[in-house]
Amino acid sequence: MNKNFTRLLIGSGESSPEIRYLTGISTPDDFICFETPSGVTALMSKLEISRARSCAKPGVAVLPESDFGTSRQEIITGAAKIFNTNCFEVPPEFPLGLAEKLNASGIKLHVSESDFCPGRRSKDKQELQAVIDSQRAGEAGFSRAVKVLEEATISPDGLLIWNGETLTSEILRAEIDCTILKHNALPTGTICAGAKQSSQPHNQGSGPLYAHTPIVMDIFPRSSVSGYWGDLTRTVVKGKAPEIVKRAYEAVKEAREYAKSKIALNVSCASIHLAAESILEKHRFFTGTSDGEPFGFFHGLGHGVGLEIHESPRLSPRSKDILTGGEIFTVEPGVYYPEWGGIRLEDLIYLAPDGEVHCLTRAPDFLEIF
Amino acid sequence: MNKNFTRLLIGSGESSPEIRYLTGISTPDDFICFETPSGVTALMSKLEISRARSCAKPGVAVLPESDFGTSRQEIITGAAKIFNTNCFEVPPEFPLGLAEKLNASGIKLHVSESDFCPGRRSKDKQELQAVIDSQRAGEAGFSRAVKVLEEATISPDGLLIWNGETLTSEILRAEIDCTILKHNALPTGTICAGAKQSSQPHNQGSGPLYAHTPIVMDIFPRSSVSGYWGDLTRTVVKGKAPEIVKRAYEAVKEAREYAKSKIALNVSCASIHLAAESILEKHRFFTGTSDGEPFGFFHGLGHGVGLEIHESPRLSPRSKDILTGGEIFTVEPGVYYPEWGGIRLEDLIYLAPDGEVHCLTRAPDFLEIF
Repeated sequence: MNKNFTRLLIGSGESSPEIRYLTGISTPDDFICFETPSGVTALMSKLEISRARSCAKPGVAVLPESDFGTSRQEIITGAAKIFNTNCFEVPPEFPLGLAEKLNASGIKLHVSESDFCPGRRSKDKQELQAVIDSQRAGEAGFSRAVKVLEEATISPDGLLIWNGETLTSEILRAEIDCTILKHNALPTGTICAGAKQSSQPHNQGSGPLYAHTPIVMDIFPRSSVSGYWGDLTRTVVKGKAPEIVKRAYEAVKEAREYAKSKIALNVSCASIHLAAESILEKHRFFTGTSDGEPFGFFHGLGHGVGLEIHESPRLSPRSKDILTGGEIFTVEPGVYYPEWGGIRLEDLIYLAPDGEVHCLTRAPDFLEIF
Repeated sequence: MNKNFTRLLIGSGESSPEIRYLTGISTPDDFICFETPSGVTALMSKLEISRARSCAKPGVAVLPESDFGTSRQEIITGAAKIFNTNCFEVPPEFPLGLAEKLNASGIKLHVSESDFCPGRRSKDKQELQAVIDSQRAGEAGFSRAVKVLEEATISPDGLLIWNGETLTSEILRAEIDCTILKHNALPTGTICAGAKQSSQPHNQGSGPLYAHTPIVMDIFPRSSVSGYWGDLTRTVVKGKAPEIVKRAYEAVKEAREYAKSKIALNVSCASIHLAAESILEKHRFFTGTSDGEPFGFFHGLGHGVGLEIHESPRLSPRSKDILTGGEIFTVEPGVYYPEWGGIRLEDLIYLAPDGEVHCLTRAPDFLEIF
């Protein structure tokens, strides 16, 4: 933090990780928050003030915004007088329209050049436990999916049948997601993509599921209580897997394990990505573009997980991030080919400040389900 | 749209309603999008390009962002050359940090003074159906909750017992939310707040539920397919309700119906709010503040619903919105008192362009469940 500035944020507790991190308050609508060296002040609407007071982090002052004005501009200029400043430090995401209005009222904004909440990257014990809780919710969802796939039968034309009807991505996703809900977490976009849909890493999956082709399940629940995420991917096949799918599965698993073995303090995130890539290439799973569509391993190896599902550090070839300890991040190599689909295997890692590497994922590794 | 400008947006399809409205693309991560009088262009990462092409609205050009550069700043300055302009119109939410970097590269930004996508307010047939589908998912969730409460028994100390265990807000919410998931929608913050928790309008509810006190259920699912929301609130009591709760329920219902009767083309949204308020006051449910905590009817009467759960028009005393037809919005009066809890009853309304008023909510109205 630049000590010369009072810091100003605006956002909803649900969508702004910074504002949630600083205040502990989760709201559907935007609110205004100030940080000075002496503490954090959140200005709330009448609708939210009681609830905000009951869930704010210790030491956060919660005041009614109506004491300062009605529009966002009025509230901020009103508060500026209280803080005895006409200059605030803001995060890069601060809205330009409001910034221009504030400028016109004589308020100067200085965009923070470094991370606005650098403390977010290194997780404390409570944050680690919050991520683990969400991860367990996701794992319970995965176990449920495996049970459904075990119970499913294969029709003569290769369709999966469960509970007397065709098993679809939608049905399998609802089974996973209901399990997650019962673990006090929200499933927000669970991927259950079968066959060729699995060759698009972010395709959620729709329609009937088939035997003998990959089903990618990427499960990322967010705790309804803490707001912290978990993240887990496994790829399975109902029945016997084709040779190419088996080979890809083994290569991706080896890439994941090799990448994990490279994790240590002071290591560059780019080098961990490249380690995974080298294993995939060794197994002749190449990356490129065909007719404008990418194939192979064309996403980053991983990303930090916390109050955002994708946050710092980034594990990608161009990342400049260096591991310093305390980070929680995914290691999720994958290969994708439009001809037969995709394989992705994702573990969640905690690099302790002492350098010890903890895999937070307990879901087992297997390809075929009979 | 100002015809002199190419328009520029950045956001994720999941969190930016404008970018989803213009492109039809839903992504977890931000992407860049341009609109010119001749069409919309979305620039996608390798990870998303195949999927984006398959879900983009007709006529939207989907190009790889890597053709233009690597950083957001490079991509935009690269695209500026293609569009032969150094000036873009942006929405007020455009991030200040990126705006400053673009300014430094000679790109000028002009914040849109009017609604960036004014077409979003008046829903077409497809959008209306999308909202109705989400509303039906929410109603199915409510029906499930009613069934659970019917099955529940009351312990000697007033606790609700269901399936052999104490019924909590968490369990009831999971039952509602699982039902919503099975209707292809995402429950994102379902409120099941009992007893005194129900006196905080946005308290999600936690812990055991009791007989003879209000349980506020505010259910707002978002379609996993279309991204459009539904919104529904009902308040019930298991067993006999106290007299004050009955009186409040009848007053809130009368306020809702009276407010609905005032909806018409060219009517001000503020006047509809005030109509509801007048009924609550007539029944001596007053609004104020006690020890810094608000009581009575202290939120707006309603809000538009579409690709955002809270969007234009706003039905509040200070709103300047006038109904022009095509809007979908909630009418949800409520009263809240820390001593006994709260009552909120919310219907979803479609005001057709011809002035006909359609209530989209089919959930029945009743207070007591035996």
